[in-house]
Amino acid sequence: MSDEIGNRPGGAPGLGGEGVDRLIEMLARLPGLGPRSARRAALHLLKRRESLMAPLAQTMAEVARTVRPCAECGALATAERCAICADPRRDAGLICVVEDVSDLWAMERSGAYAGRYHVLGGVLSALDGIGPDELRIPDLARRVREGAVREVILALPATMDGQTTAHYIAAQLEGLSAVTSLAQGVPVGGELDYLDDGTITAALRQRRGL
Amino acid sequence: MSDEIGNRPGGAPGLGGEGVDRLIEMLARLPGLGPRSARRAALHLLKRRESLMAPLAQTMAEVARTVRPCAECGALATAERCAICADPRRDAGLICVVEDVSDLWAMERSGAYAGRYHVLGGVLSALDGIGPDELRIPDLARRVREGAVREVILALPATMDGQTTAHYIAAQLEGLSAVTSLAQGVPVGGELDYLDDGTITAALRQRRGL
Repeated sequence: MSDEIGNRPGGAPGLGGEGVDRLIEMLARLPGLGPRSARRAALHLLKRRESLMAPLAQTMAEVARTVRPCAECGALATAERCAICADPRRDAGLICVVEDVSDLWAMERSGAYAGRYHVLGGVLSALDGIGPDELRIPDLARRVREGAVREVILALPATMDGQTTAHYIAAQLEGLSAVTSLAQGVPVGGELDYLDDGTITAALRQRRGL
Repeated sequence: MSDEIGNRPGGAPGLGGEGVDRLIEMLARLPGLGPRSARRAALHLLKRRESLMAPLAQTMAEVARTVRPCAECGALATAERCAICADPRRDAGLICVVEDVSDLWAMERSGAYAGRYHVLGGVLSALDGIGPDELRIPDLARRVREGAVREVILALPATMDGQTTAHYIAAQLEGLSAVTSLAQGVPVGGELDYLDDGTITAALRQRRGL
Protein backbone atom coordinates (compact mmCIF):
# COMPACT_ATOMS: atom_id res chain seq x y z
CA MET A 1 0.00 0.00 0.00
CA SER A 2 1.34 3.40 -0.97
CA ASP A 3 0.70 4.83 2.47
CA GLU A 4 2.95 2.21 4.00
CA ILE A 5 5.86 3.33 1.86
CA GLY A 6 7.74 6.41 2.88
CA ASN A 7 11.38 7.31 3.13
CA ARG A 8 11.55 10.81 4.47
CA PRO A 9 14.42 11.34 6.92
CA GLY A 10 13.49 12.00 10.54
CA GLY A 11 13.25 15.45 12.05
CA ALA A 12 10.48 16.57 9.72
CA PRO A 13 12.80 18.49 7.38
CA GLY A 14 11.54 21.69 5.83
CA LEU A 15 7.99 21.34 7.14
CA GLY A 16 7.09 24.97 7.56
CA GLY A 17 10.25 25.95 5.75
CA GLU A 18 13.95 26.28 6.40
CA GLY A 19 13.29 28.99 8.98
CA VAL A 20 11.34 26.82 11.41
CA ASP A 21 14.01 24.10 11.28
CA ARG A 22 16.70 26.68 11.94
CA LEU A 23 14.63 28.17 14.78
CA ILE A 24 14.21 24.75 16.41
CA GLU A 25 17.90 23.93 15.95
CA MET A 26 18.87 27.20 17.65
CA LEU A 27 16.33 26.90 20.48
CA ALA A 28 17.69 23.40 21.14
CA ARG A 29 21.05 25.01 21.94
CA LEU A 30 19.58 26.82 24.97
CA PRO A 31 20.30 25.16 28.34
CA GLY A 32 17.31 23.16 29.54
CA LEU A 33 15.86 22.73 26.05
CA GLY A 34 16.43 19.50 24.09
CA PRO A 35 15.33 18.84 20.49
CA ARG A 36 11.87 17.83 21.66
CA SER A 37 11.21 20.80 23.93
CA ALA A 38 12.74 23.07 21.29
CA ARG A 39 10.04 21.89 18.85
CA ARG A 40 7.37 22.56 21.48
CA ALA A 41 8.85 26.00 22.15
CA ALA A 42 8.89 26.82 18.42
CA LEU A 43 5.21 25.89 18.01
CA HIS A 44 4.38 27.80 21.19
CA LEU A 45 6.04 30.86 19.63
CA LEU A 46 4.30 30.37 16.28
CA LYS A 47 0.93 30.37 18.07
CA ARG A 48 1.85 33.63 19.82
CA ARG A 49 3.37 35.41 16.85
CA GLU A 50 2.32 38.94 17.82
CA SER A 51 2.15 38.61 21.60
CA LEU A 52 5.46 36.81 22.14
CA MET A 53 7.51 35.77 19.09
CA ALA A 54 7.96 39.16 17.42
CA PRO A 55 8.58 41.06 20.71
CA LEU A 56 11.01 38.37 21.90
CA ALA A 57 12.94 38.57 18.62
CA GLN A 58 13.11 42.36 18.96
CA THR A 59 14.16 42.29 22.62
CA MET A 60 16.81 39.67 21.85
CA ALA A 61 18.25 41.76 19.03
CA GLU A 62 18.17 44.89 21.21
CA VAL A 63 19.90 43.17 24.15
CA ALA A 64 22.52 41.63 21.84
CA ARG A 65 23.19 45.14 20.57
CA THR A 66 23.11 47.16 23.81
CA VAL A 67 24.21 44.95 26.72
CA ARG A 68 27.94 44.74 27.38
CA PRO A 69 30.23 43.88 30.32
CA CYS A 70 30.58 46.66 32.91
CA ALA A 71 34.01 48.25 32.50
CA GLU A 72 34.36 48.29 36.29
CA CYS A 73 33.08 44.93 37.56
CA GLY A 74 32.33 42.80 34.50
CA ALA A 75 28.59 42.49 35.22
CA LEU A 76 25.96 43.22 32.58
CA ALA A 77 25.64 46.88 31.67
CA THR A 78 23.90 49.02 29.09
CA ALA A 79 26.20 51.98 29.82
CA GLU A 80 29.95 51.90 30.42
CA ARG A 81 29.30 51.05 34.08
CA CYS A 82 26.55 48.75 35.39
CA ALA A 83 23.59 49.81 37.53
CA ILE A 84 25.38 48.74 40.73
CA CYS A 85 28.75 50.37 39.98
CA ALA A 86 26.88 53.55 39.01
CA ASP A 87 24.78 53.53 42.20
CA PRO A 88 26.34 55.86 44.81
CA ARG A 89 24.30 54.14 47.54
CA ARG A 90 26.26 50.91 47.02
CA ASP A 91 29.24 50.74 49.40
CA ALA A 92 32.36 51.05 47.20
CA GLY A 93 34.51 49.86 50.13
CA LEU A 94 33.13 46.32 49.75
CA ILE A 95 33.70 44.10 46.73
CA CYS A 96 31.99 40.71 46.47
CA VAL A 97 33.81 38.43 44.01
CA VAL A 98 31.57 36.01 42.09
CA GLU A 99 32.23 33.52 39.32
CA ASP A 100 29.39 34.56 37.06
CA VAL A 101 26.58 37.08 36.61
CA SER A 102 24.07 34.45 37.75
CA ASP A 103 25.83 34.36 41.14
CA LEU A 104 25.60 38.15 41.32
CA TRP A 105 21.86 37.87 40.69
CA ALA A 106 21.56 35.25 43.44
CA MET A 107 23.38 37.56 45.88
CA GLU A 108 21.09 40.46 44.89
CA ARG A 109 17.97 38.34 45.42
CA SER A 110 19.12 37.70 48.98
CA GLY A 111 18.93 41.47 49.51
CA ALA A 112 21.60 41.06 52.21
CA TYR A 113 24.46 42.82 50.42
CA ALA A 114 24.82 46.52 49.70
CA GLY A 115 28.40 46.65 48.36
CA ARG A 116 29.82 46.35 44.86
CA TYR A 117 30.75 43.23 42.87
CA HIS A 118 33.52 41.80 40.73
CA VAL A 119 32.56 39.14 38.17
CA LEU A 120 35.50 36.86 37.32
CA GLY A 121 33.79 35.20 34.37
CA GLY A 122 34.93 31.75 35.56
CA VAL A 123 37.25 30.08 38.01
CA LEU A 124 40.86 28.90 37.67
CA SER A 125 40.96 25.46 36.08
CA ALA A 126 44.12 23.58 35.19
CA LEU A 127 41.95 21.06 33.34
CA ASP A 128 40.30 23.66 31.09
CA GLY A 129 43.52 25.68 30.93
CA ILE A 130 41.93 28.73 32.53
CA GLY A 131 44.60 30.89 34.18
CA PRO A 132 44.39 34.24 36.05
CA ASP A 133 44.61 36.23 32.81
CA GLU A 134 41.56 34.45 31.31
CA LEU A 135 39.64 35.71 34.33
CA ARG A 136 39.28 39.29 35.56
CA ILE A 137 41.67 38.81 38.49
CA PRO A 138 44.19 41.47 37.38
CA ASP A 139 41.31 43.98 37.15
CA LEU A 140 40.27 43.04 40.67
CA ALA A 141 43.78 43.67 42.04
CA ARG A 142 43.80 47.02 40.22
CA ARG A 143 40.40 48.00 41.66
CA VAL A 144 41.52 47.11 45.18
CA ARG A 145 44.82 48.94 44.75
CA GLU A 146 43.23 52.07 43.29
CA GLY A 147 39.97 52.23 45.28
CA ALA A 148 39.47 52.54 49.02
CA VAL A 149 38.42 48.89 49.38
CA ARG A 150 38.38 47.71 52.99
CA GLU A 151 37.03 44.17 52.39
CA VAL A 152 36.86 41.71 49.50
CA ILE A 153 34.23 39.00 50.07
CA LEU A 154 34.84 35.84 48.03
CA ALA A 155 31.52 34.23 47.06
CA LEU A 156 33.02 31.51 44.87
CA PRO A 157 31.71 27.96 44.37
CA ALA A 158 32.64 25.46 47.10
CA THR A 159 34.34 23.30 44.48
CA MET A 160 38.01 22.41 44.15
CA ASP A 161 38.51 24.98 41.37
CA GLY A 162 36.44 27.56 43.23
CA GLN A 163 38.51 27.21 46.37
CA THR A 164 41.78 27.19 44.40
CA THR A 165 40.66 30.48 42.86
CA ALA A 166 39.73 31.86 46.27
CA HIS A 167 43.19 31.08 47.68
CA TYR A 168 44.91 32.51 44.61
CA ILE A 169 42.94 35.78 44.92
CA ALA A 170 43.59 35.96 48.67
CA ALA A 171 47.33 35.70 47.91
CA GLN A 172 47.10 38.39 45.22
CA LEU A 173 45.33 40.81 47.56
CA GLU A 174 47.57 40.16 50.56
CA GLY A 175 48.22 43.44 52.38
CA LEU A 176 45.88 45.37 50.07
CA SER A 177 42.55 44.62 51.76
CA ALA A 178 40.84 42.23 54.14
CA VAL A 179 39.71 39.11 52.28
CA THR A 180 36.81 37.03 53.59
CA SER A 181 34.76 34.19 52.19
CA LEU A 182 31.11 33.15 52.54
CA ALA A 183 30.61 30.77 55.47
CA GLN A 184 30.11 27.12 54.65
CA GLY A 185 27.64 25.16 56.72
CA VAL A 186 24.16 23.74 57.08
CA PRO A 187 21.70 25.42 54.66
CA VAL A 188 18.78 27.16 56.37
CA GLY A 189 16.10 24.52 56.72
CA GLY A 190 18.60 21.83 55.79
CA GLU A 191 18.45 18.48 57.55
CA LEU A 192 21.77 16.96 58.61
CA ASP A 193 20.54 13.60 57.42
CA TYR A 194 20.53 14.84 53.81
CA LEU A 195 23.81 16.76 53.89
CA ASP A 196 27.06 15.47 52.39
CA ASP A 197 29.97 14.80 54.73
CA GLY A 198 31.95 17.76 53.39
CA THR A 199 29.22 20.22 54.38
CA ILE A 200 28.81 18.68 57.83
CA THR A 201 32.59 18.78 58.37
CA ALA A 202 32.70 22.45 57.31
CA ALA A 203 29.73 23.33 59.52
CA LEU A 204 31.43 21.59 62.45
CA ARG A 205 34.78 23.31 61.88
CA GLN A 206 33.09 26.71 61.61
CA ARG A 207 30.77 26.16 64.61
CA ARG A 208 29.79 29.30 66.51
CA GLY A 209 29.11 29.97 70.19
CA LEU A 210 25.52 30.84 71.05
CA MET B 1 26.96 46.78 59.33
CA SER B 2 26.13 48.48 56.07
CA ASP B 3 26.67 45.28 54.12
CA GLU B 4 24.06 43.52 56.22
CA ILE B 5 21.43 46.07 55.28
CA GLY B 6 19.84 45.82 51.90
CA ASN B 7 16.27 46.16 50.67
CA ARG B 8 16.39 45.54 46.96
CA PRO B 9 13.38 43.56 45.69
CA GLY B 10 14.06 40.03 44.42
CA GLY B 11 14.57 39.14 40.80
CA ALA B 12 17.62 41.36 40.41
CA PRO B 13 15.71 44.25 38.79
CA GLY B 14 17.45 46.26 36.11
CA LEU B 15 20.82 44.53 36.50
CA GLY B 16 22.05 44.69 32.95
CA GLY B 17 19.17 46.95 32.08
CA GLU B 18 15.48 46.77 31.30
CA GLY B 19 16.17 44.66 28.22
CA VAL B 20 17.68 41.69 30.04
CA ASP B 21 14.77 41.61 32.51
CA ARG B 22 12.30 41.70 29.62
CA LEU B 23 14.27 38.99 27.80
CA ILE B 24 14.19 36.73 30.88
CA GLU B 25 10.49 37.41 31.46
CA MET B 26 9.71 36.43 27.84
CA LEU B 27 11.95 33.36 27.81
CA ALA B 28 10.19 32.22 31.00
CA ARG B 29 6.95 32.07 28.98
CA LEU B 30 8.35 29.29 26.77
CA PRO B 31 7.18 25.77 27.67
CA GLY B 32 9.84 23.92 29.64
CA LEU B 33 11.52 27.10 30.88
CA GLY B 34 10.79 28.49 34.35
CA PRO B 35 12.12 31.76 35.79
CA ARG B 36 15.36 30.09 36.85
CA SER B 37 16.11 28.34 33.55
CA ALA B 38 15.05 31.50 31.71
CA ARG B 39 17.80 33.39 33.57
CA ARG B 40 20.31 30.68 32.63
CA ALA B 41 19.15 30.79 29.00
CA ALA B 42 19.50 34.59 28.91
CA LEU B 43 23.07 34.42 30.22
CA HIS B 44 23.84 31.59 27.80
CA LEU B 45 22.64 33.84 24.96
CA LEU B 46 24.61 36.85 26.25
CA LYS B 47 27.77 34.76 26.19
CA ARG B 48 27.07 33.73 22.59
CA ARG B 49 26.01 37.11 21.28
CA GLU B 50 27.32 36.70 17.73
CA SER B 51 27.13 32.92 17.36
CA LEU B 52 23.62 32.40 18.74
CA MET B 53 21.76 35.40 20.16
CA ALA B 54 21.79 37.70 17.12
CA PRO B 55 21.09 34.90 14.59
CA LEU B 56 18.29 33.50 16.78
CA ALA B 57 16.69 36.93 17.03
CA GLN B 58 16.89 37.32 13.26
CA THR B 59 15.51 33.82 12.55
CA MET B 60 12.69 34.38 15.02
CA ALA B 61 11.73 37.66 13.40
CA GLU B 62 11.93 36.08 9.94
CA VAL B 63 9.80 33.08 10.91
CA ALA B 64 7.24 35.32 12.63
CA ARG B 65 7.03 37.29 9.38
CA THR B 66 7.04 34.48 6.81
CA VAL B 67 5.48 31.36 8.30
CA ARG B 68 1.69 31.05 8.06
CA PRO B 69 -0.92 28.26 8.15
CA CYS B 70 -1.19 26.27 4.89
CA ALA B 71 -4.41 27.31 3.12
CA GLU B 72 -5.06 23.65 2.31
CA CYS B 73 -4.24 21.66 5.47
CA GLY B 74 -3.45 24.17 8.20
CA ALA B 75 0.15 23.03 8.70
CA LEU B 76 3.06 25.49 8.72
CA ALA B 77 3.83 27.01 5.34
CA THR B 78 6.01 29.74 3.89
CA ALA B 79 3.99 29.81 0.68
CA GLU B 80 0.19 29.60 0.31
CA ARG B 81 0.44 25.79 0.49
CA CYS B 82 2.82 23.82 2.75
CA ALA B 83 5.69 21.62 1.53
CA ILE B 84 3.53 18.48 1.80
CA CYS B 85 0.41 19.84 0.06
CA ALA B 86 2.68 21.21 -2.70
CA ASP B 87 4.50 17.87 -3.12
CA PRO B 88 2.98 15.89 -6.05
CA ARG B 89 4.59 12.69 -4.72
CA ARG B 90 2.37 12.82 -1.62
CA ASP B 91 -0.79 10.76 -2.17
CA ALA B 92 -3.67 13.28 -2.31
CA GLY B 93 -6.15 10.42 -1.91
CA LEU B 94 -5.14 9.99 1.72
CA ILE B 95 -5.70 12.60 4.44
CA CYS B 96 -4.32 12.05 7.95
CA VAL B 97 -6.18 14.21 10.49
CA VAL B 98 -4.06 15.43 13.42
CA GLU B 99 -4.75 17.75 16.34
CA ASP B 100 -1.65 19.87 16.01
CA VAL B 101 1.45 20.48 13.88
CA SER B 102 3.57 18.63 16.46
CA ASP B 103 1.53 15.48 15.75
CA LEU B 104 2.15 15.98 12.01
CA TRP B 105 5.88 16.17 12.72
CA ALA B 106 5.68 12.96 14.78
CA MET B 107 3.92 11.18 11.89
CA GLU B 108 6.56 12.46 9.45
CA ARG B 109 9.40 11.27 11.68
CA SER B 110 7.92 7.76 11.52
CA GLY B 111 8.44 7.95 7.77
CA ALA B 112 5.55 5.50 7.40
CA TYR B 113 3.04 7.84 5.80
CA ALA B 114 3.12 9.27 2.29
CA GLY B 115 -0.29 10.92 2.10
CA ARG B 116 -1.47 14.44 2.95
CA TYR B 117 -2.53 15.91 6.30
CA HIS B 118 -5.24 18.02 7.87
CA VAL B 119 -4.37 19.93 11.05
CA LEU B 120 -7.47 20.64 13.16
CA GLY B 121 -5.73 23.05 15.51
CA GLY B 122 -7.29 21.38 18.53
CA VAL B 123 -9.99 18.88 19.51
CA LEU B 124 -13.64 19.36 20.40
CA SER B 125 -14.00 20.28 24.05
CA ALA B 126 -17.26 21.10 25.81
CA LEU B 127 -15.22 22.24 28.81
CA ASP B 128 -13.13 24.74 26.85
CA GLY B 129 -16.08 25.60 24.63
CA ILE B 130 -14.32 24.44 21.47
CA GLY B 131 -16.87 23.51 18.79
CA PRO B 132 -16.45 22.25 15.20
CA ASP B 133 -16.20 25.81 13.85
CA GLU B 134 -13.28 26.67 16.15
CA LEU B 135 -11.46 23.75 14.50
CA ARG B 136 -10.82 23.18 10.80
CA ILE B 137 -13.48 20.46 10.47
CA PRO B 138 -15.61 22.28 7.87
CA ASP B 139 -12.48 22.69 5.73
CA LEU B 140 -11.81 18.96 6.07
CA ALA B 141 -15.33 18.10 4.88
CA ARG B 142 -14.86 20.49 1.95
CA ARG B 143 -11.50 18.92 1.02
CA VAL B 144 -12.99 15.43 1.10
CA ARG B 145 -16.03 16.51 -0.92
CA GLU B 146 -14.00 18.37 -3.55
CA GLY B 147 -10.93 16.13 -3.80
CA ALA B 148 -10.71 12.46 -4.78
CA VAL B 149 -10.09 11.35 -1.20
CA ARG B 150 -10.46 7.60 -0.70
CA GLU B 151 -9.44 7.40 2.97
CA VAL B 152 -9.30 9.74 5.96
CA ILE B 153 -7.01 8.44 8.73
CA LEU B 154 -7.79 9.90 12.15
CA ALA B 155 -4.58 10.25 14.21
CA LEU B 156 -6.19 12.02 17.16
CA PRO B 157 -5.23 11.73 20.84
CA ALA B 158 -6.61 8.71 22.67
CA THR B 159 -8.31 11.03 25.14
CA MET B 160 -12.02 11.55 25.76
CA ASP B 161 -12.03 14.79 23.74
CA GLY B 162 -9.85 13.24 21.03
CA GLN B 163 -12.20 10.30 20.58
CA THR B 164 -15.29 12.54 20.69
CA THR B 165 -13.70 14.56 17.89
CA ALA B 166 -12.91 11.37 15.95
CA HIS B 167 -16.54 10.19 16.13
CA TYR B 168 -17.85 13.63 15.18
CA ILE B 169 -15.57 13.75 12.11
CA ALA B 170 -16.50 10.19 11.13
CA ALA B 171 -20.17 11.23 11.20
CA GLN B 172 -19.44 14.34 9.12
CA LEU B 173 -17.62 12.32 6.46
CA GLU B 174 -20.15 9.47 6.34
CA GLY B 175 -20.60 8.36 2.72
CA LEU B 176 -17.90 10.75 1.47
CA SER B 177 -14.83 8.63 2.18
CA ALA B 178 -13.54 5.69 4.19
CA VAL B 179 -12.62 6.84 7.71
CA THR B 180 -10.07 4.89 9.73
CA SER B 181 -8.21 5.53 12.97
CA LEU B 182 -4.74 4.62 14.23
CA ALA B 183 -4.72 1.29 16.03
CA GLN B 184 -4.53 1.35 19.79
CA GLY B 185 -2.40 -1.26 21.52
CA VAL B 186 0.88 -2.17 23.13
CA PRO B 187 3.66 0.27 22.16
CA VAL B 188 6.59 -1.35 20.38
CA GLY B 189 8.99 -2.40 23.12
CA GLY B 190 6.29 -1.74 25.71
CA GLU B 191 6.01 -4.08 28.68
CA LEU B 192 2.47 -5.09 29.68
CA ASP B 193 3.47 -4.63 33.28
CA TYR B 194 3.85 -0.87 32.74
CA LEU B 195 0.76 -0.32 30.57
CA ASP B 196 -2.47 1.22 31.84
CA ASP B 197 -5.60 -0.94 31.83
CA GLY B 198 -7.18 1.08 29.02
CA THR B 199 -4.31 0.30 26.66
CA ILE B 200 -4.32 -3.40 27.55
CA THR B 201 -8.09 -3.55 27.05
CA ALA B 202 -7.77 -1.85 23.65
CA ALA B 203 -4.90 -4.12 22.61
CA LEU B 204 -6.95 -7.15 23.61
CA ARG B 205 -10.06 -5.98 21.77
CA GLN B 206 -8.02 -5.27 18.63
CA ARG B 207 -5.99 -8.51 18.82
CA ARG B 208 -4.88 -9.91 15.44
CA GLY B 209 -4.36 -13.43 14.15
CA LEU B 210 -0.74 -14.41 13.41
